[in-house]
Amino acid sequence: MKLYVSPYAPNPRRVTMFMAEKGITGIEQVSIDLMKDEHRTPEYLAKNPLGLVPALELDDGRVLSETRAICTYLEGLYPEPNLMGRDAEERAFIEMADRRVELQLFRGITDWVRHTHPALATLERPQFSEFGLAQAGKARDKLRWLDEVLGKQQYVAGDRFTIADITAYCGLEFAKALVKLRPGEEGLVNVQAWRDRIHERPSAAASK
Amino acid sequence: MKLYVSPYAPNPRRVTMFMAEKGITGIEQVSIDLMKDEHRTPEYLAKNPLGLVPALELDDGRVLSETRAICTYLEGLYPEPNLMGRDAEERAFIEMADRRVELQLFRGITDWVRHTHPALATLERPQFSEFGLAQAGKARDKLRWLDEVLGKQQYVAGDRFTIADITAYCGLEFAKALVKLRPGEEGLVNVQAWRDRIHERPSAAASK
Repeated sequence: MKLYVSPYAPNPRRVTMFMAEKGITGIEQVSIDLMKDEHRTPEYLAKNPLGLVPALELDDGRVLSETRAICTYLEGLYPEPNLMGRDAEERAFIEMADRRVELQLFRGITDWVRHTHPALATLERPQFSEFGLAQAGKARDKLRWLDEVLGKQQYVAGDRFTIADITAYCGLEFAKALVKLRPGEEGLVNVQAWRDRIHERPSAAASK
Repeated sequence: MKLYVSPYAPNPRRVTMFMAEKGITGIEQVSIDLMKDEHRTPEYLAKNPLGLVPALELDDGRVLSETRAICTYLEGLYPEPNLMGRDAEERAFIEMADRRVELQLFRGITDWVRHTHPALATLERPQFSEFGLAQAGKARDKLRWLDEVLGKQQYVAGDRFTIADITAYCGLEFAKALVKLRPGEEGLVNVQAWRDRIHERPSAAASK
C-alpha cells in the first residue's frame, strides 16, 4: 500500500498518527506538495479525482480517500489497539465525538486558517478574510465547549484514547503553527492539559 | 427512543430517510423549530450542548448527536437492509463516498444557502454573502464530479443503494427548495436521472 501525504497538512497527519498508535509500518509514504499544486496534476487526479490528501492506494490498485474512511479500513486490518469502537454502539458514540471535533472545531480552524493566512492563498481560491476571521470566533466557541467536556473526562470521546483525540489534536497543532492559537493562554486549562498529555504520546512525535 | 428533528432541515431528513429505508418505526419524533431558536433553549442544550439537530435520545437517557453517528447506531440495532457496509473494507469505501458527498457537495450547498438566503439569517450569524456565492460555484464543481461518477455506476457508492445516496439526495433536495438548483437544467443528466430514481423510493416521500 502507498499513502499520499503532505507535510504540515493536518488531515494526512491524522492518518499517520493513527498508524503510529497502531504500530503500523511498511506502508510507503508519498509526499504531495500542495504548494506546488501536485494535488492537481493529471496523475494525482487519476488517483483521487477530488484532488485531496490523504489517499491510500491499495495493492490491488484501488484508491481510498477521506481521512476517516482510511482509518476505518486500517482499523479493520489492524484491530488493536482499538481506536474507533468495538461494536456498533461504541462506534456510534466515538463517531459522534470525532465528528463534533472534526465538523465544528477542526473545520472552524481550517476555515479560519485557509481564508486568512497569506501562505494558503494558493489552496483556498478565493480567500474571504472577513469570513475567515468570523470562523476564528466560532472555533474559540467550540474550544470552550471542548474545555467543558475535558473538565469531566480524560479524553475527547470518554475515558480512553480514540480517533477523536487524534482529530482534535491535529487540528489544534495546525492552529498553533499557523495562527498561534494556544488554549492555555486563553484560560482553557482543561484543553491545554489534555493537549500536553496527547503531545507526550510517541505517535505525536512520529507523525510530525 | 426520541428523535429530535426540524422541518425542512436536510440533516434530520438524512436520519428519517435512513429509518424509512430500514422500516424502523416506533421512535417518537420531537420537532425543534430552528426559526424560533428552539435549538438554543437551555432544555435542548442540556441534551445536545452544540445545539444541533438531529439528536437521538436513548431510553437510558444518553443523547447521541451527529447525523452519521446516529445512523451507525441504528444500523447496529437494525442491520437490514444494510446501508453502511457489511465489513470494515466495505464500510470504508461507503464512508469514503458518503464523506465525499457530505463534506464537498452537501457542505458546499449548505454554505451557499446559509450564507445567502435571507430566511437563514437567524441561523447563520453573521452571513457572508460573497463567500456564500463562491460556494455555489464550488458546489456546482462537485456536482459535475458526481455526474461523472453516476455516468459509470448506478449509485453514489457503487452498484447498490447506501447511506451515501441519502446524503447526496437530501442535500440536493434542500438546494432545489432553497436556491432552485436543478441538475438537469445544467446539463448534468446523470445526476438528474439518479435523483429521479431516488425520488421514487418510498423513503423519499416518507421523510419529506
